[in-house]
Amino acid sequence: MSAEQHPQDPSAVVATEVAPRAKPSNYPEPYASRVSGREKRALGEVFALRNFGVNLTRLQPGAISALRHTHSRQDEFIYVLEGHPVLVTDQGETPLAPGMCAGFRAGNGNAHHLVNRGDEVVVYLEVGDRTRGDSVNYPDDDLAAVIGPDGGWQFAHKDGRPY
Amino acid sequence: MSAEQHPQDPSAVVATEVAPRAKPSNYPEPYASRVSGREKRALGEVFALRNFGVNLTRLQPGAISALRHTHSRQDEFIYVLEGHPVLVTDQGETPLAPGMCAGFRAGNGNAHHLVNRGDEVVVYLEVGDRTRGDSVNYPDDDLAAVIGPDGGWQFAHKDGRPY
Repeated sequence: MSAEQHPQDPSAVVATEVAPRAKPSNYPEPYASRVSGREKRALGEVFALRNFGVNLTRLQPGAISALRHTHSRQDEFIYVLEGHPVLVTDQGETPLAPGMCAGFRAGNGNAHHLVNRGDEVVVYLEVGDRTRGDSVNYPDDDLAAVIGPDGGWQFAHKDGRPY
Repeated sequence: MSAEQHPQDPSAVVATEVAPRAKPSNYPEPYASRVSGREKRALGEVFALRNFGVNLTRLQPGAISALRHTHSRQDEFIYVLEGHPVLVTDQGETPLAPGMCAGFRAGNGNAHHLVNRGDEVVVYLEVGDRTRGDSVNYPDDDLAAVIGPDGGWQFAHKDGRPY
């Protein structure tokens, strides 16, 4: 075992047994409420991965995956395990089903999110890398992600006023 | 639609309808034969993702995911969809089942692969990023990945002799 390996790292886990993320959303209100039916299990962090994150995410009926958004430098990918979310992009709406997947290439400007309009829970895997210098654009909402005084992301209105 | 978006990029696909990778393996013999029951569908490439790859991979009974290996800079992650592969690492063997996942942190030196010892097909998603400067170590086999004259990866014996 090398010095970099953590002795407590598990070999493998049952994804649904990973504890959900304690803080459901970093969005300010009124946006946090729109994702209140969303629950994320950070699977990649169980194994201390650094280059990308993998979440097992559940959307209750009525919940959305995120505000519709696009990344400048980070790719994203989703694979549907359960339920029937609707993928909304600049091109319109695409109904999804288990076994379907979608990818969102960094920098293409095509904003996307998933909406659970059904009566059943939606469960999907989401992957996103951690390329530095990323920025996020929310075309439908008065929200901008900016670097705060602590170096982390903070949200503001698009004219710069803080929430 | 921005200039960077390809008009032909689909919004979403059924993962099993993506064509399998034409060349099953880059390994030289006798190693290529050991993964002959492996089939990969490159899901991330459908969406022109660049920062990481996502494959839907099937292992027939008796097949292995790869030679047991470890990456210096690239993280890897797998999520089992069907079947019961065995995960083999430096710590031993871990039986997996649908809904289980495992992550392989870059640089920890813990070599890993999956083996399908069952009678049913194994299907899993695998994610790996594309951080530059990566190298791969195969502790069980006389194989080394080296940069060839065209700048791409080539395989050689560990003493440098080409295959």
